[in-house]
Amino acid sequence: MPLRFTPRDTSFFDLLAELATHLVTGADLLAQLLGADRPERKALAKQLGDVEHDADETTHAIMRRLNQTFVTPFDRDDIYALASALDDCMDFMEEAADLIVLYRIGELPARVSDQVQVLQRAAELTADAMPRLRSMSDLADFWVEVNRLENQADKLHRKLLAELFDNVADPIELMKLKEVVEILEAAADAFEKVANTVETIALKES
Amino acid sequence: MPLRFTPRDTSFFDLLAELATHLVTGADLLAQLLGADRPERKALAKQLGDVEHDADETTHAIMRRLNQTFVTPFDRDDIYALASALDDCMDFMEEAADLIVLYRIGELPARVSDQVQVLQRAAELTADAMPRLRSMSDLADFWVEVNRLENQADKLHRKLLAELFDNVADPIELMKLKEVVEILEAAADAFEKVANTVETIALKES
Amino acid sequence: MPLRFTPRDTSFFDLLAELATHLVTGADLLAQLLGADRPERKALAKQLGDVEHDADETTHAIMRRLNQTFVTPFDRDDIYALASALDDCMDFMEEAADLIVLYRIGELPARVSDQVQVLQRAAELTADAMPRLRSMSDLADFWVEVNRLENQADKLHRKLLAELFDNVADPIELMKLKEVVEILEAAADAFEKVANTVETIALKES
Repeated sequence: MPLRFTPRDTSFFDLLAELATHLVTGADLLAQLLGADRPERKALAKQLGDVEHDADETTHAIMRRLNQTFVTPFDRDDIYALASALDDCMDFMEEAADLIVLYRIGELPARVSDQVQVLQRAAELTADAMPRLRSMSDLADFWVEVNRLENQADKLHRKLLAELFDNVADPIELMKLKEVVEILEAAADAFEKVANTVETIALKES
Repeated sequence: MPLRFTPRDTSFFDLLAELATHLVTGADLLAQLLGADRPERKALAKQLGDVEHDADETTHAIMRRLNQTFVTPFDRDDIYALASALDDCMDFMEEAADLIVLYRIGELPARVSDQVQVLQRAAELTADAMPRLRSMSDLADFWVEVNRLENQADKLHRKLLAELFDNVADPIELMKLKEVVEILEAAADAFEKVANTVETIALKES
Repeated sequence: MPLRFTPRDTSFFDLLAELATHLVTGADLLAQLLGADRPERKALAKQLGDVEHDADETTHAIMRRLNQTFVTPFDRDDIYALASALDDCMDFMEEAADLIVLYRIGELPARVSDQVQVLQRAAELTADAMPRLRSMSDLADFWVEVNRLENQADKLHRKLLAELFDNVADPIELMKLKEVVEILEAAADAFEKVANTVETIALKES
């Protein structure tokens, strides 16, 4: 970690970056889980559960510090919103993984992997962007690109829904798949929320 | 457009009014779509998609201006909440239309038209109310009436759910219809959010 | 009611406590409803509807006072968030009860009673905690315990989902039960939101 000369709560940046790093790990585990067989999936979902637990700890550390710190690097409510949105990204990814295992879902449609690839890309962009909050530099690319990804995820989601209704004849199987697909879409929305919050912060500071 | 003599960001009012006008157009297209046959529905859903895109542009214009303007006509967070809620109304209406086409739904129960009529009425009231934000006059009627409409929508929604479960024997068809009906209910909730935000703004200013 | 010597809007505390008391009554009615037979369930759902209506009145009283009061005992937005979250708890419990009747659901799985027991406990803790907002004392136990309960509810919820998918062969029956179970989970989330808002308030004041 670099030397710090300013006392103004640089640790918020470290904690937000740490939280975003958990998201990258989580999204990668979720991608692995999709391609794995059942016993492996169970182990990967457990690992993802551990990462989600770590992310929870980081989120609570941010919240505690937020409530106990007099001067924050930017608007208190914006830090709160950002940490909550990051935490939501993780919760949805973990929930999707858990339900895939719990529902004993077999092979998933190819477009579900596309959904998770969007999440992986969004997580990477987020982890790259968090350290740049310190200097408020080059953040526009981040929120523009994540918004573009979310639009892509949204289109993918609707195609996937139509595809499921066309191809899955068993209504109970359909219900399971639809739920997983909707949780992944909620994760993409949560990444967009992260990007929009970063935009708000950056524009206020500019 | 009338002459403006005050420099205090009157354009927020224009943009909010513009956004609400898109909602009226959107709700009307949705109502037409319900009564149309399939090829026509597809064309109407496309039109609604264009309106939703226009509304998105207006919302972004509001957000940009909000982040770049020092003095806003009322609380920054309230303008943000109002624009977001208006945008949500549109998103839900567009999503409902898109899914009706995507799921190749046939004739819809009569109560779905009732739901959409409530949305049309809420959109008209909203478009009427937005220009009155400038003078903060006669807004109470608006939020009282939209809250009344939302209560009506809520009762309708539950009756409709019970009706679907009683009358639709095919579980896959039921899932499709239930999803559309729930998105329309979410649109009614978003209009209530609009009305509650207007109430908050008006009471703060009084 | 005790004598009041301070003019600083003690009534917010009374109204929040009143709202939480409605939640205890509501959760108890919901628990009774689960064990009752159909005609009795209908009467209990009606009673719960009345309690929800009372809670609505209390929430509106809080909102009105909030918008008309210059000095509030703590952050205006936090009072707003707290009242909204309490109101959400009630709305979800009422909705669950209403759907159980509307869908003519028969016997519910034992784990649904466990879910409702968690809600009853959360409601009691909340009603106990609200009066302590006045002195800001001993609130940490409250939010820690409600967070623990929500974690428990979350685990229960997932087990229950898996159980439903394993045991309910009729997809339409499954859809009905899944919806009720998800609304109960949303109620548990709303109680967590209450606890987190109390934590924010307490830490700001400390």
